[in-house]
Amino acid sequence: MVMNFVEQAEKLQEKTIARRRDFHKHPEAAWTEFRTAAIVADTLAGLGYEVLAGAEVVDEQSMMGVPKTAELERHAERALAQGANPVWVEKMRGGKTGVVGVLRCARPGPVIGLRFDMDANDAVETEEITHRPVRDGFASVNRGAMHACGHDGHTAIGLAVAEILASLKNELCGTVKLIFQPAEEGVRGARAMSVKGVADDVDYFLGLHIGFNTKETGHLACRIEGFLATTKLDAVFTGIAAHAGAAPEAGRNALLAAAAAALNLHAIARHSQGPSRINVGQLEAGTGRNVVPANAVIKLETRGTTTAINEYMCSEAMRIIKAAADMYGVQVAISEMGGAAGAENDLCLVERVEKVAERLKIFKEIWPSCYFGASEDCTYFMERVQQHGGKAAYIMIGANLAAGHHDFRFDFDEAALTQAVALVSAVAADLLKA
Amino acid sequence: MVMNFVEQAEKLQEKTIARRRDFHKHPEAAWTEFRTAAIVADTLAGLGYEVLAGAEVVDEQSMMGVPKTAELERHAERALAQGANPVWVEKMRGGKTGVVGVLRCARPGPVIGLRFDMDANDAVETEEITHRPVRDGFASVNRGAMHACGHDGHTAIGLAVAEILASLKNELCGTVKLIFQPAEEGVRGARAMSVKGVADDVDYFLGLHIGFNTKETGHLACRIEGFLATTKLDAVFTGIAAHAGAAPEAGRNALLAAAAAALNLHAIARHSQGPSRINVGQLEAGTGRNVVPANAVIKLETRGTTTAINEYMCSEAMRIIKAAADMYGVQVAISEMGGAAGAENDLCLVERVEKVAERLKIFKEIWPSCYFGASEDCTYFMERVQQHGGKAAYIMIGANLAAGHHDFRFDFDEAALTQAVALVSAVAADLLKA
Amino acid sequence: MVMNFVEQAEKLQEKTIARRRDFHKHPEAAWTEFRTAAIVADTLAGLGYEVLAGAEVVDEQSMMGVPKTAELERHAERALAQGANPVWVEKMRGGKTGVVGVLRCARPGPVIGLRFDMDANDAVETEEITHRPVRDGFASVNRGAMHACGHDGHTAIGLAVAEILASLKNELCGTVKLIFQPAEEGVRGARAMSVKGVADDVDYFLGLHIGFNTKETGHLACRIEGFLATTKLDAVFTGIAAHAGAAPEAGRNALLAAAAAALNLHAIARHSQGPSRINVGQLEAGTGRNVVPANAVIKLETRGTTTAINEYMCSEAMRIIKAAADMYGVQVAISEMGGAAGAENDLCLVERVEKVAERLKIFKEIWPSCYFGASEDCTYFMERVQQHGGKAAYIMIGANLAAGHHDFRFDFDEAALTQAVALVSAVAADLLKA
Amino acid sequence: MVMNFVEQAEKLQEKTIARRRDFHKHPEAAWTEFRTAAIVADTLAGLGYEVLAGAEVVDEQSMMGVPKTAELERHAERALAQGANPVWVEKMRGGKTGVVGVLRCARPGPVIGLRFDMDANDAVETEEITHRPVRDGFASVNRGAMHACGHDGHTAIGLAVAEILASLKNELCGTVKLIFQPAEEGVRGARAMSVKGVADDVDYFLGLHIGFNTKETGHLACRIEGFLATTKLDAVFTGIAAHAGAAPEAGRNALLAAAAAALNLHAIARHSQGPSRINVGQLEAGTGRNVVPANAVIKLETRGTTTAINEYMCSEAMRIIKAAADMYGVQVAISEMGGAAGAENDLCLVERVEKVAERLKIFKEIWPSCYFGASEDCTYFMERVQQHGGKAAYIMIGANLAAGHHDFRFDFDEAALTQAVALVSAVAADLLKA
Repeated sequence: MVMNFVEQAEKLQEKTIARRRDFHKHPEAAWTEFRTAAIVADTLAGLGYEVLAGAEVVDEQSMMGVPKTAELERHAERALAQGANPVWVEKMRGGKTGVVGVLRCARPGPVIGLRFDMDANDAVETEEITHRPVRDGFASVNRGAMHACGHDGHTAIGLAVAEILASLKNELCGTVKLIFQPAEEGVRGARAMSVKGVADDVDYFLGLHIGFNTKETGHLACRIEGFLATTKLDAVFTGIAAHAGAAPEAGRNALLAAAAAALNLHAIARHSQGPSRINVGQLEAGTGRNVVPANAVIKLETRGTTTAINEYMCSEAMRIIKAAADMYGVQVAISEMGGAAGAENDLCLVERVEKVAERLKIFKEIWPSCYFGASEDCTYFMERVQQHGGKAAYIMIGANLAAGHHDFRFDFDEAALTQAVALVSAVAADLLKA
Repeated sequence: MVMNFVEQAEKLQEKTIARRRDFHKHPEAAWTEFRTAAIVADTLAGLGYEVLAGAEVVDEQSMMGVPKTAELERHAERALAQGANPVWVEKMRGGKTGVVGVLRCARPGPVIGLRFDMDANDAVETEEITHRPVRDGFASVNRGAMHACGHDGHTAIGLAVAEILASLKNELCGTVKLIFQPAEEGVRGARAMSVKGVADDVDYFLGLHIGFNTKETGHLACRIEGFLATTKLDAVFTGIAAHAGAAPEAGRNALLAAAAAALNLHAIARHSQGPSRINVGQLEAGTGRNVVPANAVIKLETRGTTTAINEYMCSEAMRIIKAAADMYGVQVAISEMGGAAGAENDLCLVERVEKVAERLKIFKEIWPSCYFGASEDCTYFMERVQQHGGKAAYIMIGANLAAGHHDFRFDFDEAALTQAVALVSAVAADLLKA
Repeated sequence: MVMNFVEQAEKLQEKTIARRRDFHKHPEAAWTEFRTAAIVADTLAGLGYEVLAGAEVVDEQSMMGVPKTAELERHAERALAQGANPVWVEKMRGGKTGVVGVLRCARPGPVIGLRFDMDANDAVETEEITHRPVRDGFASVNRGAMHACGHDGHTAIGLAVAEILASLKNELCGTVKLIFQPAEEGVRGARAMSVKGVADDVDYFLGLHIGFNTKETGHLACRIEGFLATTKLDAVFTGIAAHAGAAPEAGRNALLAAAAAALNLHAIARHSQGPSRINVGQLEAGTGRNVVPANAVIKLETRGTTTAINEYMCSEAMRIIKAAADMYGVQVAISEMGGAAGAENDLCLVERVEKVAERLKIFKEIWPSCYFGASEDCTYFMERVQQHGGKAAYIMIGANLAAGHHDFRFDFDEAALTQAVALVSAVAADLLKA
Repeated sequence: MVMNFVEQAEKLQEKTIARRRDFHKHPEAAWTEFRTAAIVADTLAGLGYEVLAGAEVVDEQSMMGVPKTAELERHAERALAQGANPVWVEKMRGGKTGVVGVLRCARPGPVIGLRFDMDANDAVETEEITHRPVRDGFASVNRGAMHACGHDGHTAIGLAVAEILASLKNELCGTVKLIFQPAEEGVRGARAMSVKGVADDVDYFLGLHIGFNTKETGHLACRIEGFLATTKLDAVFTGIAAHAGAAPEAGRNALLAAAAAALNLHAIARHSQGPSRINVGQLEAGTGRNVVPANAVIKLETRGTTTAINEYMCSEAMRIIKAAADMYGVQVAISEMGGAAGAENDLCLVERVEKVAERLKIFKEIWPSCYFGASEDCTYFMERVQQHGGKAAYIMIGANLAAGHHDFRFDFDEAALTQAVALVSAVAADLLKA
């Protein structure tokens, strides 16, 4: 196999950019990616992939931070109006907007998994004429949603890689699994696909992000460190209201339960094995000055530099919240609103990616390592693959940025798309070569 | 002097009811009683009273729970549009909507003070046709404001009493002071007039309420016990936001300050001299799950069966709130949003009222005593009068009610108005008789 | 029956004073009254009473604040060495030092219960020569124990009353029950006898105290109000120690659990039906500055003006303590160390006592009423009697005092003993008369 | 200069061991090292050193965790009885038991500082015959004090080094400063000498410990990392007692202030720049169950991997403790009971020590680096030296141990003494060579 992946990627460049711009124009926030996912599914099917979607690849119980049913329905209708294939939308009802494409190559071999996230941010895109999407007519038409993190690009990269690998089906050994994930924002979506087992048979797994810390086109970072495991929790306390003057003893004070929880959560003992974090970011309680408050909600997050440290923080937090409710005789319901694991890149895979990248000669700088310092739910897949004996890595592909990620003026250099397509295809082919 | 006060009150009945209905139709919530107060001022002036208003009778520093300037302005314009005399509205700018009418009688004698509150509730009146104000065309035209506590009646009573006493000017000894107070709801208005000294020279002071615990027309209660002193506080904490993952130490956590305040406020030691109360009824803090919260507000109230016990609770609360802010290195601003004193009726005055009431023969039942069990800022005047050596009492004049006070279907039997006019005029004349 | 109870009491005066001084010289603190109780039992038996003692009249499970076994044993030995009858001491092993004497009169009639407490205080008696017990040679020989509350007198009164009533056995109707209770100090003993049912069949019950608020010989108070129900709790928290620098997450912090408990206990909502109290009087936790504290103890008490209010406080406290332990993942053991009920004197019985007292003509002043304002576990008997349909009262018999109760120079005018003997015998005879 | 330092050290071996055993037999805990320091002073003076002691080298205000005056006096007397030179003891009154010996060499050159700590632990030495100090007759005769950390050895090393360097006075350039420090246990003593400026002119500074992590004779570690900066605080809260039932509002609750402090101290926000620690290791409050607690004390420590992080923790802690006192209206006095800085060895000095060590050929293993993971107040000197532009290092000289440091069976292989003497003399000479 002597394919020139750079050449292939360049051939697809126009199509890839067009797709990215179409996705950018029709951004869909977490769990509402009906149109994007339907296009992905259609495209993969057209390329000969076996396509799994909806409940086949998303475990409903493990979905986190899902919008209310009415909102999901509204978005399904919106997606249909924007051209989504009704067959897929039907399959994805309830927000199960994950898609997996499977390509079984001619000969037996390893399974590789490539993960691309599809969701947009909850943001209102700038209308300034200097913003390229505005100038070139592909700014968001879905007000309140905006691709401000580059997932439009990730999805377009995934489809181009799908096309290149499909063209090599007869020359490669093993299986290609392309995982298109919803709801990465708020780290809400990967768990549901991971728990469903979509990556359980994967031998080599690759996740990627464009831009991020590698803010310059032509830069590449493969040794990513410092993924922060995290859990996002909402706790809703329900007590009993009472007139604070006439019968204070008849009340069950949800405000004090929440306040006690907040204080004691912040007092969770530090962990000797690495940094941890706790933050109760919001507390809302009570209705009137003279009523014993019967309702309270706190929104919090725990973090740790490893999954284990975060689990320590999270299990401490759970116990404290329940005890705070008991302390004031109120009920509490805790919901997991998001989460990510810690992760470490497998160095053998990292080195293989780096070697392929060097061979391609399209990167002007390959970083020795890069500190992530944030949370990404791709880690759920990575952890699962590693638990099953596979190897996993996450890479960052540099791109010049118009503004930082999540900024309402975010945009990126589309040249990075072509570099990413070339690299990911080449790595996949390398892993599946005879 | 052999006047028949019942007859006089009946002569004014139609006018009194018409006034009450006009006030009911144009309800004005706390500190926005521009139209009501202007009508009161015009009427008193027309009857020959010396009329004081605005800054003459309201101490600006002591006003509590005042709406924002823009809202006050909007209401002033609204009042003008609804016919208020611009001269008075101008005088009352900034919400200083108190009015005092002074009638100096022919001969020297004691000063009597009669207090009437004028403000409406923040409520949306029912539109049911069974509701008499709807049926008879005097339901609120100021949406969001409603006379659901009978202060429309109190004001109308005050103007009728003013007319009767004016007609007796030459026969009575001493001075009549009619105090028309804004903002009784939320116990916000009396302090500002009391501090201004409007009741400082009063020898006999009378406040009243129609309906309330005496829920039946023809009932009267003069020995009122159980006024609860209270203070309403808002505390706004301001810290510094920081990313909870990247730099938690850079934050100044207003949420935790508020939570610590709430817990420790509820731990204020009980008072051995009588019941006390504390309630943090609301706590709102923070903006996002992953941000160290820089803002928080708590709304609380203290109570005590005496002014001293409430002052103990309030000063403890103040210290705790400030210390909670210090504890987390945040700023705090505490605002007094309302308050009332404790009070005891002077029995000699009570007995005098009871004797007059018996002579009038219009009440079918005079209660031996009545427990108030709530807060009324009329107590500020009573306390001040008593501190200066005067006597004070507060009476309840029964009235059949369509629904409880503060209910959006509240209405009362207007026959009570006439009974109240007769009683209050007769008591005043009795106190000022030669 | 025309007995002269005053004369009878005077005849026994010397013997009563001698007994009181013997008890005073051999004071025995709570649950160690082996010698006192043995003398009581011997005396009652000698007078023809049926005598019940030890497990017959004390429910072991309900004993509160009992010393350790070794200490009890030491005191049993001490009592034997001080002349206690070994038969009774054996029966009272384990601190079950209650005694009940039953006298069945000739004819059927009501059951009367008279209660006398026997224990001394944990105090070191003064050695000043001006202190009469020192001067007259009956100061405590049991260092660390001292009759500083007059229970020595109560016991002596009980034995004199026993003698007088026994002499009237053939003339009275019904049954006399003399209840000699251990461990009133710390309100620890009455519950165990009350739960055992010793007062369940009592129709008329009388408890008494000499001195107290009626600090003058010849004064008497029978309408006692303001008994405070109370519960004394110890909570022992057990966590896991860990090096605070090297592995803070491995610890389970008992100090923070205790601190959280203390704060939230004081935040128990006030009760609208009457005054309540909470006090965490002691907190001891931790061993070293750099060790996560694995041990903590808090000592607290709740109070209420009624049994119901105290039960509210106590059940809230229990829940809060357990939740605080859960919050920090530590164990907690809560022990009830003492308690008393609320109580109200039955007015019909009060009046009967007052009438008898007047007839005796030995009291120079009978108070109209008296506020107790403290806790007495005699209330457990009173509550139980009343629950079974009987009548109960508690009286205070004035006595000049050398110093306040519980003071190490406490002593009282022994003339009060004779007055008490006369009154109690006369009341008993009045209740049991044909 | 071609001196053989190993040979010199061996010549002094017997004397060094004898001194160590003498110190071991007469252990003196923090601030009571009167005898040890007096011997040091006498010895240094005898060798021709200029000797500074007492207030000349110890800043009284900066002494931390000093015993009470009476105890200091008792120890001064004890030291005299054990042969201490009264001249020095007089100079060291009040616990100022630091000594500095200065040797000015023939020619100008750098100033080197060598620091040796002298104090024993608060421990009772084992009496088992298998314990060499027992077997060989040099076990502690000062019950309650024991050299369980090897400072007896450090002092003996210092005196041997002093002797060798004195013998080279004419051949070396510059100045030797030998700093004998009291009260390293509890990290209490270095600050007072450091603040006094004794190391301010030092160009090269060396501290050392025998044993510790290098638990085997012949091992050496020079690149020490992981010094934890720490502060030890005691906070004493003083409120007002009150009867918890009769007048709870009259109390000022020190127990709740301490509890609030403890909880909120543990909630200090984590620091993003490195691990931090907080531990309230002890809390003692209150006197009786029914008394509002007027007294409370907490003992705590903060830590951080750098001086800056610990200062953040400590200043947060200070503010929180004061605010907790304010919150409950009580007074608080905070005392600094100990402390250490963070520190980093200067690599150029480390390398120089390593080179000298290699040349000596007495160490079988020189570690590449070693993690300290604890606190040592030698860091105060190091920080000060570095702030003044000097270089500092801390080394660990391996020694076989009979039991861990601070164990009551601690003993070490005295062969390490000779190795240490050789190394330190050789390094000093190397730094001062012409």
